[in-house]
Amino acid sequence: MEMKMAVLPGDGIGPEVMDAAIRVLKNVLGRYGHEAVFEKGLIGGAAIDETGTPLPEETLEICRRSDAILLGAVGGPKWDHNPASLRPEKGLLGLRKEMGLFANLRPVKAYAPLLSASPLKREFVENVDLVIVRELTGGLYFGRPSERRGPAQHEVVDTLQYTREEIERIVDKAFQLARIRRKKLASVDKANVLESSRMWREIVEETSAKYPDVEVRNMLVDSTSMQLIANPGQFDVIVTENMFGDILSDEASMITGSLGMLPSASLRSDRFGMYEPVHGSAPDIAGQGKANPLGTVLSAAMMLRYSFGLEKEAEAIEKAVDGVLRAGYCTGDLQVPNGKIVGTDELAGRLIEKLGE
Amino acid sequence: MEMKMAVLPGDGIGPEVMDAAIRVLKNVLGRYGHEAVFEKGLIGGAAIDETGTPLPEETLEICRRSDAILLGAVGGPKWDHNPASLRPEKGLLGLRKEMGLFANLRPVKAYAPLLSASPLKREFVENVDLVIVRELTGGLYFGRPSERRGPAQHEVVDTLQYTREEIERIVDKAFQLARIRRKKLASVDKANVLESSRMWREIVEETSAKYPDVEVRNMLVDSTSMQLIANPGQFDVIVTENMFGDILSDEASMITGSLGMLPSASLRSDRFGMYEPVHGSAPDIAGQGKANPLGTVLSAAMMLRYSFGLEKEAEAIEKAVDGVLRAGYCTGDLQVPNGKIVGTDELAGRLIEKLGE
Ligand SMILES: CC(C)[C@H](C(=O)O)[C@@H](O)C(=O)O
Ligand SMILES: CC(C)[C@H](C(=O)O)[C@@H](O)C(=O)O
Repeated sequence: MEMKMAVLPGDGIGPEVMDAAIRVLKNVLGRYGHEAVFEKGLIGGAAIDETGTPLPEETLEICRRSDAILLGAVGGPKWDHNPASLRPEKGLLGLRKEMGLFANLRPVKAYAPLLSASPLKREFVENVDLVIVRELTGGLYFGRPSERRGPAQHEVVDTLQYTREEIERIVDKAFQLARIRRKKLASVDKANVLESSRMWREIVEETSAKYPDVEVRNMLVDSTSMQLIANPGQFDVIVTENMFGDILSDEASMITGSLGMLPSASLRSDRFGMYEPVHGSAPDIAGQGKANPLGTVLSAAMMLRYSFGLEKEAEAIEKAVDGVLRAGYCTGDLQVPNGKIVGTDELAGRLIEKLGE
Repeated sequence: MEMKMAVLPGDGIGPEVMDAAIRVLKNVLGRYGHEAVFEKGLIGGAAIDETGTPLPEETLEICRRSDAILLGAVGGPKWDHNPASLRPEKGLLGLRKEMGLFANLRPVKAYAPLLSASPLKREFVENVDLVIVRELTGGLYFGRPSERRGPAQHEVVDTLQYTREEIERIVDKAFQLARIRRKKLASVDKANVLESSRMWREIVEETSAKYPDVEVRNMLVDSTSMQLIANPGQFDVIVTENMFGDILSDEASMITGSLGMLPSASLRSDRFGMYEPVHGSAPDIAGQGKANPLGTVLSAAMMLRYSFGLEKEAEAIEKAVDGVLRAGYCTGDLQVPNGKIVGTDELAGRLIEKLGE
């Protein structure tokens, strides 16, 4: 089987971390005897500059003929004052919707060599190993109307909208994931206020009948935002709607204090997926060769696991990351005690070395 | 001037902490020569049990003829399975809406004797002194439609709705508050996705012309949920819409690790206000005389400040709280190193003693 991957480096540090990740990816694929083709596309600010739109049709075509997408980062001050339709993040939102990527997975895991980097005390972080499953193509992000109205446009509305099917598929995805993990699911809503949350809760209840081995509990979003700080170790899988997920997954990404390490996957029901680091385009350090490639590298590992079923290969990458950190190598954003700060390319080289050991 | 206060103890530990707070309040008022009348009303589960509704008309009347409301806590497992309209929190939501309490203020401040209680490392917490100003009577909480629809009710919508005036008054309130504090305002929205957020941002921009001495910046809600953990000391006043405020203020309430200490105020444009601790009704320890009264006591101090303009008296209470903690007295939920755990009533007594020093 030849694997086809769309590669969208994007803006800021996107191209650098992508180059590093592709080197690592090619190395591991070669080692295990897989063939892959990589096709590059434009997205975000880079696409606006070159084609006048953040998501060119050509990019969509590349993605459609691929098995998975690896994305760097989009955005930067250069485009911050563009009108809404010409903003880099529109490319991202468009891609999610066009490709039907309704399930965003964001794992947050404590790495032993990085424990001291957390704003939280050690005992609150050391056992953290959770995944947030965020609904990604519905809710307030895409509901209509979203407009001004009334006399002199004095009123404004946005719409939190879901169909039963949209909720069912994301809840089911989360149960599936919980089943292959520690079998604990927290479903997060605001059922004491929102009708959509009450429907969400009903669907969780119904779906749980299919997964008797998974222990599920319903939590309110405000209480969850507390618990993520007070006791993050209690969570295994968390599932929630789009906007709640946006807020909670960013909150969760601070728990370990190592944003640059975090990967993400955006999936649908088949094996297709888009994979990208959680960090942004970091324009302040772009082009300096010092960006942390590990978020993108770990996203590539998720890609191997979820889109290609290559569990061993994914684990090889994850082990290499762990090994390199334990050996004391890191980029400037990471706080490895007595660590040696190296550049993006050297860190990729160290990973490749570890893969060979 | 005779001050009139509505006292709504509510459920769980509400009555105990309220009794303690009223003792302290009466003491400080007596000391400064003020006269006050207190009128008790039912709310929440207690009101459901006695009158069949979480917000009886009589309670509303008591509130309408008062200058301010002091509230304990509402809710408990006993009413958790009631239909939506017969839930204790409906009493709270109804009171906010009926009395027009559109501005919820939640201060979060680090107390030196309690620093070690935080999940966050000391250096992240010690300078924290922020207030979240949350819009409380609009947005997703009250927007219509909020309903199931379509064939077989397969679709659900909630509506995030604001008028220009609703946004203007809360933003203005936040600027006013920033002006009498450290003059730094962070306005939180999701302007890259929501039309309501774009209107919000425009109004912040317009209003800022009236407050040239206040430094204002716009932040995205996801980024704010990160920054509250990564660097909470950067914030002075934060203003945001209802649902974002619900999530962020609960997140912020965990920063210090001492939820039981946190007060809140819900205000409108005149001096009327409702004051309540941030903690819940804690049914597990209700009736045992060990609940922490300090959140309610500090809410009473906010009441003196905002509804009655009694700054000296408010500060006297706040100093007494600080003094009692420094002397090592606390309730079981607080972690004062080498502290002496005492009951609700004894802690109130210690506060009264301090007030006399
Ligand atoms: C850029 C923005 C529209 C996007 C979102 O809110 O979904 C981002 O915050 C994310 O979480 O990927
Ligand atoms: C009880 C609930 C409806 C309420 C809210 O969401 O406003 C509570 O969480 C609060 O913050 O006071």
